[in-house]
Amino acid sequence: MNKICELFGIQYPVIQGGMIWCSGWQLVSAVSNAGGLGLIGAGSMYPDVLREQIRKTKSATDKPFGVNVPLLYPNIDEIMQIIVDEGVGIVFTSAGNPKSWTHFLHENGIKVAHVVSNSKFAVKAEAAGVDAIVAEGFEAGGHNGREESTTMVLIPAVRKVTNKPLIAAGGISSGRAMLAAQILGADGVQIGSRFVASEESSAHENFKQAIISAQEGDTNLVLKKLVPVRLLRNDFAKQIELAEAEGKTSAELAQLLGRGRAKLGMFAGNISEGELEIGQASALIDNILPVKTIFRGIIEEYDMVKDSFKNEPFF
Amino acid sequence: MNKICELFGIQYPVIQGGMIWCSGWQLVSAVSNAGGLGLIGAGSMYPDVLREQIRKTKSATDKPFGVNVPLLYPNIDEIMQIIVDEGVGIVFTSAGNPKSWTHFLHENGIKVAHVVSNSKFAVKAEAAGVDAIVAEGFEAGGHNGREESTTMVLIPAVRKVTNKPLIAAGGISSGRAMLAAQILGADGVQIGSRFVASEESSAHENFKQAIISAQEGDTNLVLKKLVPVRLLRNDFAKQIELAEAEGKTSAELAQLLGRGRAKLGMFAGNISEGELEIGQASALIDNILPVKTIFRGIIEEYDMVKDSFKNEPFF
Repeated sequence: MNKICELFGIQYPVIQGGMIWCSGWQLVSAVSNAGGLGLIGAGSMYPDVLREQIRKTKSATDKPFGVNVPLLYPNIDEIMQIIVDEGVGIVFTSAGNPKSWTHFLHENGIKVAHVVSNSKFAVKAEAAGVDAIVAEGFEAGGHNGREESTTMVLIPAVRKVTNKPLIAAGGISSGRAMLAAQILGADGVQIGSRFVASEESSAHENFKQAIISAQEGDTNLVLKKLVPVRLLRNDFAKQIELAEAEGKTSAELAQLLGRGRAKLGMFAGNISEGELEIGQASALIDNILPVKTIFRGIIEEYDMVKDSFKNEPFF
Repeated sequence: MNKICELFGIQYPVIQGGMIWCSGWQLVSAVSNAGGLGLIGAGSMYPDVLREQIRKTKSATDKPFGVNVPLLYPNIDEIMQIIVDEGVGIVFTSAGNPKSWTHFLHENGIKVAHVVSNSKFAVKAEAAGVDAIVAEGFEAGGHNGREESTTMVLIPAVRKVTNKPLIAAGGISSGRAMLAAQILGADGVQIGSRFVASEESSAHENFKQAIISAQEGDTNLVLKKLVPVRLLRNDFAKQIELAEAEGKTSAELAQLLGRGRAKLGMFAGNISEGELEIGQASALIDNILPVKTIFRGIIEEYDMVKDSFKNEPFF
């Protein structure tokens, strides 16, 4: 049996990335009901909002689901306690040291996966005792590693140093890409952008429309002097690019960024001035669909390619 | 039969990238003799040197081989005439408009492949009548596209717009990656970095040693204000990174770059001050081997993964 399916008790090794402003209970429960693993994106939620979202998810699905927690979250103790109190069984941690919370979560019977962008951190995550590792490549949306290793190189590099259940992320939006990621050494995949452009995601309709219009080269990894983040190249992102080309300092860039840009863009729908976190896979996405349809499409394509491939003489 | 094998009359759909300072007759003939397609890298050769290299290759193999020609080469007319006069059957063009030479080459019975970094240029290449398209992702070494699309996203994007024989490049150094690229939609692969670190490549021994020492994050795409190029992050590359962070202009960067840096690093072996063009796959390469051994390793891994995969229940 597939390691990821076994670990999380799910039907397909497909994780929906726990993305800020996009991953509320509707998306999460739809993905879990379709046989994958939905993740609530706690990074954009006040503690009370998270509690409410967990409860709503529980009432919308009896399948396993989880919460993604960026470890630099200010109210982290409160967040972790809510997760325990509400009986969530799975936590994906990112942006921080996996040592700090893995033990606590395990003591409370919670499975832990940790997101990394290089093989050194994968080794550290394994040493911290996590149950699974997510390796996220340069092409992924949102916050991203400084090494800029792409999924094609990162997955074999991480697979070389660990036998832990491995989830590939970055550039994956189809059954074909899912199969390629497994060939590269992953056990399962985490899919972000494709699920943002779903009917159930809490992304603003304007943001969804911008995603399906995006072409190759329409995202860029910016703010490398602060924390690298892949954004859709709207007016705001282009301002940042210009400031970077002029050699603005991290303090100047932080001021230009200001506060609340992600909410402004992704949730409130200000497409020109907001921060629109999305992956390169947006260039391959051209419709907004129900999660069930997206999910079926991925699995059907996966099976089709796998079957055709058994007979096809590649050379 | 595989489209790339059929087109070029080779046994395996594996192309060795025609890399400046690394791809002389020894490497090219070794790859062609192993059943792939070797490409002479004309970009670093004076016309007379190219003629000599073609003749030496012909005397070292009776298998098909080709020449890679950057179309911005100053002596392009002379180069193309030499290729025709010497009876070379295959040309890979890059860095320029495929319209300019495809017709001339076809008239002389030469097969043409053109290198692109996005699907728009793939459409243009097809319209220009090329026989095959190489789509090269962000992780590739040397000169690179402005869109920064990675192989994982670029191959499906190009496959969507063309049915031409498609060769994937960027991040591919193993049989596993070759199979993944085919799953993504490619017919064959172009491999660069792995062949630079071969016994037969004309890269300086110091450069080869630097490649096998390289880890994730040790290459970076720099000089985006001029022409983006992926380099090993040596003293010179770090100077460039610093100058870029300070907002230096393209003129200032061009001055810092100066002339002859690629030869200095890759051919003369000045590892700190030269330009060392290499791909992210360098992080996965840890030995210098004869081409025959590299080639056998790739094909054996490819077959092994393909076979295991037929029976393995991924989920």
